[in-house]
Amino acid sequence: MPRYRLLLEYDGSGFVGWQRQANGRSVQATLEEAIRIFSGEAAVVEGAGRTDAGVHATGQVAHFDLARFHPPERVQAAINALVRPHPIAVLEVRVVDRSFHARLSAIERRYVYRILNRRAPPVLERGRVWHVVRPLDVVHMQEAARLLEGRHDFSSFRDAECQAASPVKTLSRLVVQRRGCVVEIRAAARSFLHHQVRNMVGTLVLVGDGRRPIAWVREVLEARDRRAAGPTAPACGLYLEAVRYPDEPLSAAGACTSVASDNP
Amino acid sequence: MPRYRLLLEYDGSGFVGWQRQANGRSVQATLEEAIRIFSGEAAVVEGAGRTDAGVHATGQVAHFDLARFHPPERVQAAINALVRPHPIAVLEVRVVDRSFHARLSAIERRYVYRILNRRAPPVLERGRVWHVVRPLDVVHMQEAARLLEGRHDFSSFRDAECQAASPVKTLSRLVVQRRGCVVEIRAAARSFLHHQVRNMVGTLVLVGDGRRPIAWVREVLEARDRRAAGPTAPACGLYLEAVRYPDEPLSAAGACTSVASDNP
Repeated sequence: MPRYRLLLEYDGSGFVGWQRQANGRSVQATLEEAIRIFSGEAAVVEGAGRTDAGVHATGQVAHFDLARFHPPERVQAAINALVRPHPIAVLEVRVVDRSFHARLSAIERRYVYRILNRRAPPVLERGRVWHVVRPLDVVHMQEAARLLEGRHDFSSFRDAECQAASPVKTLSRLVVQRRGCVVEIRAAARSFLHHQVRNMVGTLVLVGDGRRPIAWVREVLEARDRRAAGPTAPACGLYLEAVRYPDEPLSAAGACTSVASDNP
Repeated sequence: MPRYRLLLEYDGSGFVGWQRQANGRSVQATLEEAIRIFSGEAAVVEGAGRTDAGVHATGQVAHFDLARFHPPERVQAAINALVRPHPIAVLEVRVVDRSFHARLSAIERRYVYRILNRRAPPVLERGRVWHVVRPLDVVHMQEAARLLEGRHDFSSFRDAECQAASPVKTLSRLVVQRRGCVVEIRAAARSFLHHQVRNMVGTLVLVGDGRRPIAWVREVLEARDRRAAGPTAPACGLYLEAVRYPDEPLSAAGACTSVASDNP
């Protein structure tokens, strides 16, 4: 029974999130429907990251099993044709060992949060960024971000609905960069609490726009109380960029796996 | 009578183009309507580049005159509020000397054409790129592009409807770069013939995917016949990125003119 591994891009705007839900269309169910139509089999698609409603992905990883073998290129073409017009693209398909599990084998998830920091509203990036008008000082934001890196009790950044067994997580990287008007915040960890990235971003923005000092972020962390932190940043700015597995290169963001000719 | 200079971003998808037309909504008319509502005056907005239907802009420049003076920040906020929900954003407003003319004073226009070069269809970039599945060799494309730089008779790349007095133009720069799956072609010139950039891109892609040799591009140029060149690349991949004026820095693409704090 072959196991297929998918690398996925999607625009999260129109979905209730990755996970199958009664109240609307999920990325997972859309993929399962396409797989059922092309293969005649009912497969369950497991994703590495259960992204929320409105959250995008450029490097989500998922897997599913089928009784029959199909060439990976055919699986890719079939799913891409059948998910239309829903904004999901299969960037790559590989047949993998049955010991591989998209969610359980993952050792790192990487997210990027994109803020459009200018007076004018987003146009070409509408629905792809959080629009923040007040000028953000990324040097201050980066200093504050450093206080969150490492192993901590992240209760202050945890959504009430979070189902994780423990609020202790190891944030391996939190980096703030400006590219023109866009401020990008990259977060990497083995796993995150529910809304952790968006709550950290909402908190860093209060430092970036000068409403809070850098050291306030340490107080927020130590409070272990969601009410101590900033607001939850909107979903539309968040992207699951890559997932890492043992003994493998990163499932890179914007990886162009079907064009090998002259990639850097 | 103050003259206002605008720096503009727009998503060209829903417009018949920059220029006012009887058969649909133009960027120009949408701006003029917003200006009339906020100022009570009927102004004509002149743009530096008359972009076609579906062509985007990240650095279009335009100007208009009003009898009354308004603070530039108020003009910006008013237009941005009144053009909604149409995807136009005023990035900057300046009051300029009446010798400035957005179209006639411009000494260089810069366009970028973006190709998504991968098997999977665009999702997050839908309507923002040309999707080309065959792998493109950007080294070959760059060599071919070099043959087009300089002063030439560009009749082979000229649309039948082009109204320019002469087919001779000076292409100051034509550069091909790959960033992951995206191939970007940047073109700079004082002015272009109608569809010149899209016809050059359609021609370079035939070299990039191996259907034509590099030297063929010289034959195309020398033929001075539109039928000798490749097809017209679709409008959705093209962006007016910047316009240059004498004694001024470039109206940069993605310029973040309202946030000065920590720009590079």
